[in-house]
Amino acid sequence: MLFRQLFDRESCTYTYLLADGGEGILIDPVKELVERDVEVAQQLNVKLKYLLNTHCHADHVTGTGDLKKVLPDAKSVISKASGAKADVLVNDGDAIAFGSRHVTVHATPGHTDGCVTFVLDDKSMCFTGDAVLVRGCGRTDFQQGDAGKLFDSVHEKVFSLPDETFVYPAHDYKGRTRSTVGEEKKYNLRLTKSRDEFIDIMANLGLPYPKMIDVAVPANLVCGIQDE
Amino acid sequence: MLFRQLFDRESCTYTYLLADGGEGILIDPVKELVERDVEVAQQLNVKLKYLLNTHCHADHVTGTGDLKKVLPDAKSVISKASGAKADVLVNDGDAIAFGSRHVTVHATPGHTDGCVTFVLDDKSMCFTGDAVLVRGCGRTDFQQGDAGKLFDSVHEKVFSLPDETFVYPAHDYKGRTRSTVGEEKKYNLRLTKSRDEFIDIMANLGLPYPKMIDVAVPANLVCGIQDE
Ligand SMILES: [Fe+2]
Ligand SMILES: [Fe+2]
Repeated sequence: MLFRQLFDRESCTYTYLLADGGEGILIDPVKELVERDVEVAQQLNVKLKYLLNTHCHADHVTGTGDLKKVLPDAKSVISKASGAKADVLVNDGDAIAFGSRHVTVHATPGHTDGCVTFVLDDKSMCFTGDAVLVRGCGRTDFQQGDAGKLFDSVHEKVFSLPDETFVYPAHDYKGRTRSTVGEEKKYNLRLTKSRDEFIDIMANLGLPYPKMIDVAVPANLVCGIQDE
Repeated sequence: MLFRQLFDRESCTYTYLLADGGEGILIDPVKELVERDVEVAQQLNVKLKYLLNTHCHADHVTGTGDLKKVLPDAKSVISKASGAKADVLVNDGDAIAFGSRHVTVHATPGHTDGCVTFVLDDKSMCFTGDAVLVRGCGRTDFQQGDAGKLFDSVHEKVFSLPDETFVYPAHDYKGRTRSTVGEEKKYNLRLTKSRDEFIDIMANLGLPYPKMIDVAVPANLVCGIQDE
Protein backbone atom coordinates (compact mmCIF):
# COMPACT_ATOMS: atom_id res chain seq x y z
CA MET A 1 0.00 0.00 0.00
CA LEU A 2 1.16 3.48 -0.84
CA PHE A 3 1.01 5.97 2.02
CA ARG A 4 1.79 9.68 2.21
CA GLN A 5 1.33 12.20 4.98
CA LEU A 6 1.06 15.87 4.03
CA PHE A 7 1.08 18.95 6.24
CA ASP A 8 -0.53 22.40 6.16
CA ARG A 9 1.76 24.85 7.97
CA GLU A 10 -1.06 27.38 8.30
CA SER A 11 -3.69 25.33 10.17
CA CYS A 12 -1.28 22.50 11.18
CA THR A 13 -3.61 20.03 9.46
CA TYR A 14 -2.41 16.65 8.24
CA THR A 15 -3.76 15.25 4.99
CA TYR A 16 -3.28 11.56 4.23
CA LEU A 17 -3.07 9.74 0.93
CA LEU A 18 -3.62 5.97 0.95
CA ALA A 19 -3.58 4.00 -2.28
CA ASP A 20 -3.50 0.48 -3.60
CA GLY A 21 -3.51 -0.78 -7.18
CA GLY A 22 -3.67 2.76 -8.54
CA GLU A 23 -6.81 3.69 -6.55
CA GLY A 24 -6.63 6.02 -3.62
CA ILE A 25 -8.37 7.94 -0.89
CA LEU A 26 -7.43 11.31 0.57
CA ILE A 27 -8.26 12.03 4.20
CA ASP A 28 -8.82 15.63 5.36
CA PRO A 29 -7.51 17.65 2.41
CA VAL A 30 -7.18 21.43 2.88
CA LYS A 31 -8.69 23.88 0.37
CA GLU A 32 -5.51 25.94 -0.06
CA LEU A 33 -3.40 22.86 -0.83
CA VAL A 34 -5.58 21.13 -3.41
CA GLU A 35 -3.05 21.77 -6.17
CA ARG A 36 -0.26 20.11 -4.19
CA ASP A 37 -2.44 17.11 -3.38
CA VAL A 38 -3.55 16.64 -6.99
CA GLU A 39 0.08 16.76 -8.13
CA VAL A 40 1.22 14.24 -5.52
CA ALA A 41 -1.55 11.80 -6.48
CA GLN A 42 -0.94 12.28 -10.20
CA GLN A 43 2.82 11.74 -10.00
CA LEU A 44 2.28 8.60 -7.93
CA ASN A 45 -0.20 7.34 -10.55
CA VAL A 46 -3.07 7.35 -8.08
CA LYS A 47 -6.67 7.87 -9.19
CA LEU A 48 -8.46 9.42 -6.22
CA LYS A 49 -11.72 7.59 -5.60
CA TYR A 50 -12.90 9.03 -2.29
CA LEU A 51 -12.18 12.32 -0.52
CA LEU A 52 -12.79 11.77 3.17
CA ASN A 53 -13.47 14.17 6.01
CA THR A 54 -13.04 12.97 9.58
CA HIS A 55 -15.51 15.70 10.61
CA CYS A 56 -16.85 19.15 9.82
CA HIS A 57 -13.69 21.13 10.63
CA ALA A 58 -13.86 24.54 12.28
CA ASP A 59 -10.26 25.61 11.68
CA HIS A 60 -9.85 25.24 7.92
CA VAL A 61 -11.99 24.75 4.82
CA THR A 62 -11.92 21.22 3.45
CA GLY A 63 -10.37 20.64 0.04
CA THR A 64 -12.99 18.12 -1.01
CA GLY A 65 -15.23 20.63 -2.82
CA ASP A 66 -12.38 22.05 -4.94
CA LEU A 67 -10.90 18.59 -5.52
CA LYS A 68 -14.20 17.42 -7.02
CA LYS A 69 -14.00 20.22 -9.60
CA VAL A 70 -10.59 18.93 -10.75
CA LEU A 71 -11.38 15.24 -10.26
CA PRO A 72 -15.04 14.83 -11.25
CA ASP A 73 -14.99 11.06 -10.62
CA ALA A 74 -13.91 11.43 -7.00
CA LYS A 75 -16.63 11.28 -4.37
CA SER A 76 -16.69 13.37 -1.20
CA VAL A 77 -17.35 11.50 2.04
CA ILE A 78 -18.43 12.64 5.51
CA SER A 79 -20.48 11.07 8.28
CA LYS A 80 -24.27 11.29 8.17
CA ALA A 81 -24.16 12.47 11.77
CA SER A 82 -22.13 15.54 10.77
CA GLY A 83 -25.18 17.10 9.11
CA ALA A 84 -22.95 18.12 6.19
CA LYS A 85 -23.65 17.40 2.52
CA ALA A 86 -21.43 15.04 0.54
CA ASP A 87 -21.68 12.40 -2.18
CA VAL A 88 -21.38 9.60 0.34
CA LEU A 89 -22.70 9.87 3.90
CA VAL A 90 -21.23 7.17 6.10
CA ASN A 91 -22.25 5.52 9.35
CA ASP A 92 -20.42 3.53 12.02
CA GLY A 93 -19.23 0.22 10.58
CA ASP A 94 -19.21 1.27 6.92
CA ALA A 95 -16.19 0.40 4.78
CA ILE A 96 -14.54 2.60 2.15
CA ALA A 97 -12.59 0.57 -0.40
CA PHE A 98 -9.61 1.46 -2.64
CA GLY A 99 -7.85 -1.23 -4.68
CA SER A 100 -7.81 -4.37 -2.54
CA ARG A 101 -7.75 -2.38 0.72
CA HIS A 102 -10.31 -0.53 2.80
CA VAL A 103 -10.77 1.66 5.84
CA THR A 104 -13.64 1.15 8.28
CA VAL A 105 -15.66 4.01 9.73
CA HIS A 106 -15.78 4.16 13.55
CA ALA A 107 -18.11 6.79 15.00
CA THR A 108 -16.13 8.75 17.60
CA PRO A 109 -18.39 11.70 18.51
CA GLY A 110 -17.58 14.20 21.25
CA HIS A 111 -15.45 16.88 19.59
CA THR A 112 -18.37 17.18 17.18
CA ASP A 113 -21.43 14.95 16.81
CA GLY A 114 -20.26 13.70 13.45
CA CYS A 115 -16.60 12.86 14.18
CA VAL A 116 -15.37 9.54 12.85
CA THR A 117 -12.10 7.61 13.04
CA PHE A 118 -11.01 5.70 9.94
CA VAL A 119 -9.27 2.40 10.72
CA LEU A 120 -7.19 0.62 8.07
CA ASP A 121 -8.22 -3.01 7.38
CA ASP A 122 -5.18 -4.56 9.10
CA LYS A 123 -5.43 -2.12 12.03
CA SER A 124 -1.89 -0.88 11.38
CA MET A 125 -3.13 2.72 11.22
CA CYS A 126 -6.05 4.80 12.40
CA PHE A 127 -6.97 8.34 11.39
CA THR A 128 -8.51 9.92 14.44
CA GLY A 129 -9.38 13.42 13.24
CA ASP A 130 -9.62 15.61 16.34
CA ALA A 131 -10.83 12.80 18.63
CA VAL A 132 -7.29 11.82 19.59
CA LEU A 133 -4.38 14.16 18.96
CA VAL A 134 -0.77 13.38 19.92
CA ARG A 135 -0.88 13.69 23.74
CA GLY A 136 -4.14 15.66 23.48
CA CYS A 137 -7.59 15.84 21.90
CA GLY A 138 -9.89 18.28 20.15
CA ARG A 139 -11.81 20.83 22.21
CA THR A 140 -15.41 20.13 23.19
CA ASP A 141 -16.75 23.63 23.86
CA PHE A 142 -18.46 24.31 20.52
CA GLN A 143 -20.02 22.46 17.55
CA GLN A 144 -22.07 20.06 19.75
CA GLY A 145 -18.94 19.27 21.76
CA ASP A 146 -19.48 16.88 24.66
CA ALA A 147 -16.51 15.86 26.78
CA GLY A 148 -18.16 12.78 28.31
CA LYS A 149 -19.12 11.54 24.86
CA LEU A 150 -15.56 12.12 23.58
CA PHE A 151 -14.07 10.22 26.52
CA ASP A 152 -16.36 7.24 25.87
CA SER A 153 -15.74 7.31 22.11
CA VAL A 154 -11.98 7.24 22.50
CA HIS A 155 -11.94 4.55 25.16
CA GLU A 156 -14.39 2.32 23.26
CA LYS A 157 -13.28 2.86 19.67
CA VAL A 158 -9.63 3.93 19.67
CA PHE A 159 -8.00 2.70 22.87
CA SER A 160 -9.49 -0.76 22.13
CA LEU A 161 -7.25 -1.03 19.02
CA PRO A 162 -3.87 -2.81 19.32
CA ASP A 163 -1.18 -0.85 21.16
CA GLU A 164 0.94 -0.92 17.97
CA THR A 165 -1.70 0.79 15.80
CA PHE A 166 -0.31 4.09 14.55
CA VAL A 167 -2.45 7.09 15.43
CA TYR A 168 -2.50 9.67 12.64
CA PRO A 169 -4.28 12.79 13.89
CA ALA A 170 -5.87 15.66 11.97
CA HIS A 171 -3.42 18.13 13.54
CA ASP A 172 -0.28 18.53 15.52
CA TYR A 173 1.09 21.88 16.60
CA LYS A 174 4.53 20.61 17.64
CA GLY A 175 5.53 18.83 14.44
CA ARG A 176 4.92 15.29 15.68
CA THR A 177 3.71 13.29 12.71
CA ARG A 178 2.24 10.26 14.44
CA SER A 179 1.77 8.35 17.66
CA THR A 180 0.52 4.89 18.63
CA VAL A 181 -2.51 3.71 20.58
CA GLY A 182 -0.17 2.33 23.26
CA GLU A 183 1.57 5.67 23.68
CA GLU A 184 -1.68 7.61 23.94
CA LYS A 185 -3.09 5.17 26.49
CA LYS A 186 0.02 5.86 28.56
CA TYR A 187 0.97 9.47 27.87
CA ASN A 188 -2.07 11.38 26.58
CA LEU A 189 -2.27 14.37 28.90
CA ARG A 190 -6.09 14.37 29.02
CA LEU A 191 -7.42 11.00 27.94
CA THR A 192 -5.45 9.06 30.56
CA LYS A 193 -7.44 10.77 33.33
CA SER A 194 -10.68 9.48 34.82
CA ARG A 195 -13.91 10.35 32.99
CA ASP A 196 -14.82 12.97 35.60
CA GLU A 197 -11.38 14.56 35.61
CA PHE A 198 -11.43 14.61 31.81
CA ILE A 199 -14.80 16.41 31.75
CA ASP A 200 -13.46 18.89 34.28
CA ILE A 201 -10.26 19.54 32.28
CA MET A 202 -12.22 20.04 29.07
CA ALA A 203 -14.63 22.49 30.74
CA ASN A 204 -11.77 24.67 31.91
CA LEU A 205 -9.42 24.98 28.93
CA GLY A 206 -10.31 28.67 28.54
CA LEU A 207 -9.56 28.66 24.81
CA PRO A 208 -10.39 31.64 22.59
CA TYR A 209 -13.21 31.48 20.03
CA PRO A 210 -11.79 29.69 16.95
CA LYS A 211 -10.88 32.39 14.45
CA MET A 212 -11.86 30.44 11.33
CA ILE A 213 -15.10 28.88 12.61
CA ASP A 214 -17.58 31.33 11.05
CA VAL A 215 -16.03 30.82 7.63
CA ALA A 216 -15.00 27.18 7.87
CA VAL A 217 -18.10 25.51 9.30
CA PRO A 218 -20.65 26.86 6.78
CA ALA A 219 -18.24 26.00 3.94
CA ASN A 220 -17.57 22.53 5.31
CA LEU A 221 -21.27 21.78 5.73
CA VAL A 222 -21.45 21.76 1.93
CA CYS A 223 -18.04 20.13 1.40
CA GLY A 224 -19.43 17.65 -1.06
CA ILE A 225 -21.18 20.12 -3.31
CA GLN A 226 -19.43 20.60 -6.59
CA ASP A 227 -20.69 23.91 -7.86
CA GLU A 228 -21.61 26.11 -4.93
CA MET B 1 12.89 -0.53 13.91
CA LEU B 2 11.23 2.47 15.45
CA PHE B 3 10.95 5.52 13.21
CA ARG B 4 9.58 9.01 13.82
CA GLN B 5 9.62 12.11 11.68
CA LEU B 6 9.35 15.48 13.40
CA PHE B 7 8.82 18.93 11.92
CA ASP B 8 9.87 22.48 12.77
CA ARG B 9 7.21 24.90 11.49
CA GLU B 10 9.60 27.83 11.76
CA SER B 11 12.48 26.66 9.54
CA CYS B 12 10.52 23.79 7.91
CA THR B 13 13.24 21.40 9.09
CA TYR B 14 12.58 17.68 9.52
CA THR B 15 14.19 15.82 12.41
CA TYR B 16 14.31 12.02 12.34
CA LEU B 17 14.42 9.52 15.17
CA LEU B 18 15.54 5.97 14.34
CA ALA B 19 15.85 3.37 17.07
CA ASP B 20 16.34 -0.31 17.59
CA GLY B 21 16.60 -2.32 20.79
CA GLY B 22 16.23 0.81 22.89
CA GLU B 23 19.16 2.61 21.23
CA GLY B 24 18.57 5.50 18.86
CA ILE B 25 19.95 8.22 16.64
CA LEU B 26 18.49 11.63 15.94
CA ILE B 27 19.14 13.24 12.56
CA ASP B 28 19.13 17.05 12.23
CA PRO B 29 17.57 18.14 15.51
CA VAL B 30 16.66 21.84 15.87
CA LYS B 31 17.81 23.88 18.89
CA GLU B 32 14.36 25.29 19.70
CA LEU B 33 12.77 21.84 19.75
CA VAL B 34 15.24 19.93 21.91
CA GLU B 35 12.69 19.58 24.71
CA ARG B 36 10.15 17.96 22.37
CA ASP B 37 12.73 15.59 20.97
CA VAL B 38 13.98 14.51 24.40
CA GLU B 39 10.39 13.83 25.49
CA VAL B 40 9.59 11.81 22.36
CA ALA B 41 12.72 9.66 22.82
CA GLN B 42 12.12 9.23 26.54
CA GLN B 43 8.47 8.17 26.17
CA LEU B 44 9.46 5.68 23.47
CA ASN B 45 12.16 4.28 25.80
CA VAL B 46 14.94 5.26 23.43
CA LYS B 47 18.43 6.07 24.69
CA LEU B 48 19.92 8.48 22.16
CA LYS B 49 23.41 7.34 21.22
CA TYR B 50 24.29 9.64 18.32
CA LEU B 51 23.04 13.09 17.30
CA LEU B 52 23.68 13.46 13.59
CA ASN B 53 23.92 16.49 11.35
CA THR B 54 23.64 16.05 7.59
CA HIS B 55 25.63 19.29 7.24
CA CYS B 56 26.44 22.64 8.78
CA HIS B 57 23.00 24.24 8.36
CA ALA B 58 22.61 27.93 7.50
CA ASP B 59 18.90 28.28 8.26
CA HIS B 60 18.61 27.03 11.84
CA VAL B 61 20.85 26.21 14.79
CA THR B 62 21.36 22.50 15.35
CA GLY B 63 19.96 20.95 18.53
CA THR B 64 22.97 18.70 19.04
CA GLY B 65 24.81 21.07 21.41
CA ASP B 66 21.83 21.54 23.74
CA LEU B 67 20.90 17.85 23.53
CA LYS B 68 24.35 16.89 24.80
CA LYS B 69 23.78 19.00 27.92
CA VAL B 70 20.64 17.00 28.70
CA LEU B 71 21.96 13.66 27.43
CA PRO B 72 25.66 13.61 28.36
CA ASP B 73 26.19 10.11 26.94
CA ALA B 74 24.98 11.08 23.46
CA LYS B 75 27.66 11.92 20.89
CA SER B 76 27.35 14.64 18.26
CA VAL B 77 28.23 13.64 14.71
CA ILE B 78 29.06 15.67 11.60
CA SER B 79 31.29 15.06 8.58
CA LYS B 80 35.00 15.82 8.81
CA ALA B 81 34.65 17.74 5.54
CA SER B 82 32.20 20.18 7.16
CA GLY B 83 35.00 21.77 9.17
CA ALA B 84 32.69 21.79 12.21
CA LYS B 85 33.54 20.41 15.64
CA ALA B 86 31.75 17.35 17.02
CA ASP B 87 32.44 14.27 19.10
CA VAL B 88 32.54 12.06 16.03
CA LEU B 89 33.75 13.29 12.64
CA VAL B 90 32.67 10.95 9.87
CA ASN B 91 33.87 10.22 6.35
CA ASP B 92 32.33 8.61 3.29
CA GLY B 93 31.68 4.92 3.95
CA ASP B 94 31.56 5.13 7.75
CA ALA B 95 28.74 3.36 9.61
CA ILE B 96 26.83 4.67 12.62
CA ALA B 97 25.24 1.84 14.62
CA PHE B 98 22.21 1.76 16.94
CA GLY B 99 20.90 -1.55 18.32
CA SER B 100 21.31 -4.10 15.55
CA ARG B 101 20.89 -1.49 12.81
CA HIS B 102 23.12 1.15 11.22
CA VAL B 103 23.18 3.99 8.74
CA THR B 104 26.05 4.46 6.30
CA VAL B 105 27.59 7.84 5.54
CA HIS B 106 27.61 8.85 1.86
CA ALA B 107 29.49 12.04 1.05
CA THR B 108 27.19 14.20 -1.09
CA PRO B 109 28.94 17.59 -1.31
CA GLY B 110 27.72 20.47 -3.44
CA HIS B 111 25.23 22.37 -1.28
CA THR B 112 28.13 22.59 1.20
CA ASP B 113 31.49 20.82 1.12
CA GLY B 114 30.58 18.69 4.12
CA CYS B 115 27.09 17.49 3.15
CA VAL B 116 26.40 13.81 3.69
CA THR B 117 23.47 11.50 3.05
CA PHE B 118 22.73 8.80 5.63
CA VAL B 119 21.50 5.53 4.12
CA LEU B 120 19.77 2.93 6.28
CA ASP B 121 21.36 -0.57 6.20
CA ASP B 122 18.55 -2.16 4.13
CA LYS B 123 18.38 0.87 1.79
CA SER B 124 14.70 1.38 2.64
CA MET B 125 15.37 5.02 3.59
CA CYS B 126 17.93 7.73 2.94
CA PHE B 127 18.30 11.05 4.72
CA THR B 128 19.54 13.48 2.13
CA GLY B 129 19.87 16.73 4.07
CA ASP B 130 19.73 19.56 1.51
CA ALA B 131 21.33 17.52 -1.30
CA VAL B 132 17.96 16.24 -2.53
CA LEU B 133 14.73 17.93 -1.45
CA VAL B 134 11.27 16.83 -2.63
CA ARG B 135 11.26 17.98 -6.27
CA GLY B 136 14.18 20.30 -5.53
CA CYS B 137 17.60 20.67 -3.90
CA GLY B 138 19.51 23.00 -1.61
CA ARG B 139 21.00 26.18 -3.05
CA THR B 140 24.65 26.28 -4.08
CA ASP B 141 25.40 30.00 -3.95
CA PHE B 142 27.05 30.21 -0.52
CA GLN B 143 28.94 28.01 2.00
CA GLN B 144 31.30 26.47 -0.63
CA GLY B 145 28.28 25.69 -2.81
CA ASP B 146 29.14 24.08 -6.15
CA ALA B 147 26.33 23.11 -8.51
CA GLY B 148 28.40 20.71 -10.64
CA LYS B 149 29.59 18.92 -7.51
CA LEU B 150 26.01 18.66 -6.21
CA PHE B 151 24.78 17.24 -9.50
CA ASP B 152 27.51 14.59 -9.49
CA SER B 153 26.95 13.73 -5.80
CA VAL B 154 23.25 13.18 -6.26
CA HIS B 155 23.56 11.16 -9.45
CA GLU B 156 26.37 8.97 -8.05
CA LYS B 157 25.23 8.54 -4.45
CA VAL B 158 21.47 9.02 -4.28
CA PHE B 159 20.01 8.27 -7.70
CA SER B 160 22.01 5.00 -7.69
CA LEU B 161 19.90 3.72 -4.77
CA PRO B 162 16.82 1.56 -5.50
CA ASP B 163 13.82 3.44 -6.91
CA GLU B 164 11.80 2.35 -3.86
CA THR B 165 14.18 3.93 -1.33
CA PHE B 166 12.32 6.63 0.60
CA VAL B 167 13.96 10.05 0.43
CA TYR B 168 13.67 11.92 3.71
CA PRO B 169 14.93 15.48 3.20
CA ALA B 170 16.09 18.09 5.73
CA HIS B 171 13.27 20.41 4.68
CA ASP B 172 10.06 20.75 2.79
CA TYR B 173 8.18 24.00 2.43
CA LYS B 174 4.96 22.48 1.09
CA GLY B 175 4.29 19.91 3.83
CA ARG B 176 5.43 16.86 1.85
CA THR B 177 6.99 14.46 4.33
CA ARG B 178 8.87 12.15 2.00
CA SER B 179 9.56 11.10 -1.55
CA THR B 180 11.32 8.16 -3.23
CA VAL B 181 14.45 7.91 -5.33
CA GLY B 182 12.30 6.82 -8.29
CA GLU B 183 10.07 9.87 -7.99
CA GLU B 184 12.98 12.27 -7.78
CA LYS B 185 14.70 10.69 -10.76
CA LYS B 186 11.49 11.34 -12.70
CA TYR B 187 10.01 14.53 -11.26
CA ASN B 188 12.74 16.55 -9.54
CA LEU B 189 12.46 19.97 -11.14
CA ARG B 190 16.22 20.58 -11.19
CA LEU B 191 18.08 17.30 -10.83
CA THR B 192 16.38 15.69 -13.84
CA LYS B 193 18.03 18.25 -16.15
CA SER B 194 21.41 17.82 -17.83
CA ARG B 195 24.49 18.74 -15.79
CA ASP B 196 24.96 21.98 -17.77
CA GLU B 197 21.31 22.99 -17.49
CA PHE B 198 21.41 22.23 -13.77
CA ILE B 199 24.47 24.45 -13.26
CA ASP B 200 22.72 27.19 -15.21
CA ILE B 201 19.50 26.90 -13.18
CA MET B 202 21.40 26.97 -9.90
CA ALA B 203 23.39 30.06 -10.96
CA ASN B 204 20.21 31.99 -11.68
CA LEU B 205 17.89 31.30 -8.74
CA GLY B 206 18.21 34.89 -7.54
CA LEU B 207 17.53 33.95 -3.93
CA PRO B 208 17.92 36.48 -1.09
CA TYR B 209 20.77 36.20 1.42
CA PRO B 210 19.70 33.59 4.01
CA LYS B 211 18.42 35.52 7.02
CA MET B 212 19.74 33.11 9.67
CA ILE B 213 23.16 32.39 8.15
CA ASP B 214 25.25 34.76 10.25
CA VAL B 215 23.87 33.31 13.45
CA ALA B 216 23.42 29.69 12.40
CA VAL B 217 26.72 28.87 10.70
CA PRO B 218 29.07 30.02 13.50
CA ALA B 219 26.85 28.19 16.03
CA ASN B 220 26.70 25.04 13.93
CA LEU B 221 30.47 24.98 13.41
CA VAL B 222 30.73 24.17 17.13
CA CYS B 223 27.61 21.96 17.23
CA GLY B 224 29.42 19.25 19.12
CA ILE B 225 30.79 21.41 21.87
CA GLN B 226 29.01 20.93 25.13
CA ASP B 227 29.83 24.04 27.09
CA GLU B 228 30.38 26.90 24.68
FE1 LIG C 1 -12.01 19.89 14.46
FE1 LIG D 1 21.45 23.65 4.31
